[in-house]
Amino acid sequence: MSTVNRTSDAATDARVQAVFDDIRATRGSDFINHFWRYLAFDPPLLESTWAEVKRVMATPSALDPLTKELLYIAVSVANGCGYCVHSHTAAARAKGMTAAQHADLLAVVGLAAKTNHLVTALQVPVDPAFDCEARAAAS
Amino acid sequence: MSTVNRTSDAATDARVQAVFDDIRATRGSDFINHFWRYLAFDPPLLESTWAEVKRVMATPSALDPLTKELLYIAVSVANGCGYCVHSHTAAARAKGMTAAQHADLLAVVGLAAKTNHLVTALQVPVDPAFDCEARAAAS
Amino acid sequence: MSTVNRTSDAATDARVQAVFDDIRATRGSDFINHFWRYLAFDPPLLESTWAEVKRVMATPSALDPLTKELLYIAVSVANGCGYCVHSHTAAARAKGMTAAQHADLLAVVGLAAKTNHLVTALQVPVDPAFDCEARAAAS
Amino acid sequence: MSTVNRTSDAATDARVQAVFDDIRATRGSDFINHFWRYLAFDPPLLESTWAEVKRVMATPSALDPLTKELLYIAVSVANGCGYCVHSHTAAARAKGMTAAQHADLLAVVGLAAKTNHLVTALQVPVDPAFDCEARAAAS
Amino acid sequence: MSTVNRTSDAATDARVQAVFDDIRATRGSDFINHFWRYLAFDPPLLESTWAEVKRVMATPSALDPLTKELLYIAVSVANGCGYCVHSHTAAARAKGMTAAQHADLLAVVGLAAKTNHLVTALQVPVDPAFDCEARAAAS
Amino acid sequence: MSTVNRTSDAATDARVQAVFDDIRATRGSDFINHFWRYLAFDPPLLESTWAEVKRVMATPSALDPLTKELLYIAVSVANGCGYCVHSHTAAARAKGMTAAQHADLLAVVGLAAKTNHLVTALQVPVDPAFDCEARAAAS
Repeated sequence: MSTVNRTSDAATDARVQAVFDDIRATRGSDFINHFWRYLAFDPPLLESTWAEVKRVMATPSALDPLTKELLYIAVSVANGCGYCVHSHTAAARAKGMTAAQHADLLAVVGLAAKTNHLVTALQVPVDPAFDCEARAAAS
Repeated sequence: MSTVNRTSDAATDARVQAVFDDIRATRGSDFINHFWRYLAFDPPLLESTWAEVKRVMATPSALDPLTKELLYIAVSVANGCGYCVHSHTAAARAKGMTAAQHADLLAVVGLAAKTNHLVTALQVPVDPAFDCEARAAAS
Repeated sequence: MSTVNRTSDAATDARVQAVFDDIRATRGSDFINHFWRYLAFDPPLLESTWAEVKRVMATPSALDPLTKELLYIAVSVANGCGYCVHSHTAAARAKGMTAAQHADLLAVVGLAAKTNHLVTALQVPVDPAFDCEARAAAS
Repeated sequence: MSTVNRTSDAATDARVQAVFDDIRATRGSDFINHFWRYLAFDPPLLESTWAEVKRVMATPSALDPLTKELLYIAVSVANGCGYCVHSHTAAARAKGMTAAQHADLLAVVGLAAKTNHLVTALQVPVDPAFDCEARAAAS
Repeated sequence: MSTVNRTSDAATDARVQAVFDDIRATRGSDFINHFWRYLAFDPPLLESTWAEVKRVMATPSALDPLTKELLYIAVSVANGCGYCVHSHTAAARAKGMTAAQHADLLAVVGLAAKTNHLVTALQVPVDPAFDCEARAAAS
Repeated sequence: MSTVNRTSDAATDARVQAVFDDIRATRGSDFINHFWRYLAFDPPLLESTWAEVKRVMATPSALDPLTKELLYIAVSVANGCGYCVHSHTAAARAKGMTAAQHADLLAVVGLAAKTNHLVTALQVPVDPAFDCEARAAAS
């Protein structure tokens, strides 16, 4: 059950077709997951979102592809997006995430959530030593 | 301004002193950041929290130390904990995070937040292909 | 699956019946959605919540009814409430939301989520120019 | 720094004055904290919000006043509202919260946050045994 | 549908079996809910998480067991964890939560969420009177 | 205090300068708020973020500019981003938001947050009537 209708492959919008073709080519797979099929209700939103995902996630950059998937999972967990947790856990596995790395990810995410809440409950003031600009000015 | 009082080094509680000593020894630094000094208002909470941080973050495991710090930052950003963002960005830098990696982290975190919200707004149903147990049953 | 039982129309509590009658009269429809039927497990909570929804959402005010529904969707997305996203997207459509407006809403919500996370990751200090009271004092 | 101007005692709006008087009478104290002084920029919002706080928090009900303050702190921590954490921690202390109870509260909040994140990362399906309506139908 | 496979009782890992045995003994019930069965994909994470839950929730402490369950529900609601809301509402009922207490809990949680958002929208500055350390210094 | 250094106007990076020039031209104002000055630590991130803000917020679309600012505030409040609440409240005022509209926005945001939490606490199942695809299939 969703708030818009899913776009099937038989959809004739040329812009949607072009994005679906590029997703398939970029990923080397025929499978197009639901997110793109539902986002396709608005071709411009589909185009701009896919362009950003391709640029950030599928282009070589300072962090390796698996690390980026792990970060995506971490944010999705904290934001409570079940679909995103599913899709990016599958993507991380496809990029080589082992069960031990998955467990390690969960241990860090769980611990961070716990200390995030402790810090907020205590209202801990930031240490002056963490001030990036003060350190820059002093050096 | 915080909700409990900070514990100074002159505090005489032996349990607090033991944790502070172990933090210094583990990190090879005299500096004890505010989180621990405020959490010290309750020695058992300080002990159990530090034990978990030491086990998860300072013990060799499936993910390397820098990756774990990046994940910590990602969760802290999504949970809106400013202090945690400061302390773990400083920790990530101390473990070698470059400016390019920092920018890459932000690009992934920002994109994940955006698609998390789009997915929730669309209420996208999970693809059957992502079902871990169905795949296990079929193989 | 829910944490309390749903109240059917056959329920005999007079306070619940009065609220259900007022919901039907206010909306000009016989349909009572699940939220009210579950909240009815506690008549006082049902009464006070409906009174607030009626006052804020169904009374002419400074913002038009469709804008208020769009804002409701935006908050519900950010808070990760799937049911609320469904019910208020349906309400927004009933009040005239077009597909183009829906797409525009999603573009703004997605962008806001992204920059919210970037700002938190950067810990950007508030510009003095945004200080409402300083501006008031200076004028 | 705030987004609206603070209303001082010298403000002449009769509706604001009536709410401030009732806050003072209900609490038995002359002190009016900032939340009410800023919310006073809109008298109807001030009135309806104070009426709800008075009804829920200051009227005898199924939960005792201290428990309600602890719950308020817990929600405020999870929602990342620093001001609310400060004001309700002060209120809980005024209602008798001990340091040991404060530490216990933090231990539960931190643990809940951790398992909330683990459950979301695992996407654990709800146990049929938790289904309230199925149990009601079976009995 | 979950991101890891569920561990059945027939699983032969001795560490998992020991935790399951301790859960049953601690709770005086044969029932092991899904959270533990899925978390069992990683025995060390299962062990450390159960040890913390047992210590915080099942050991006599400054707050009574029901209050701790109510706090757990409150945090789980604010963090949007549906499974956790279900499991801890069931646990609270098992520890004696009445329908009136449940309704009271919801009234406080709903009100706290509302004022959390109002405070954030107003960016209310913290009252100096709430400053714990200033008060300590002055006394 | 932030996690990166602010980029001043004297910064010589041509890409940053081009974005700053375009922000000034688009807004018809010399003022560049902190968000852009800190994001400038990474020119590509600055460029892509500004391009999206300009496209979504500063280009005529299905929703009017003020409505888009109100939605931005609503999401920023729910995500707990204080800086974003400040900057977009200032932007909304610059686009004509009245005090009555501001109060109305807060009333809707506060109410949505409250019912979001009530729905999550109740785990209300989605009404079949809200199913977009079922309705499409039936018509």
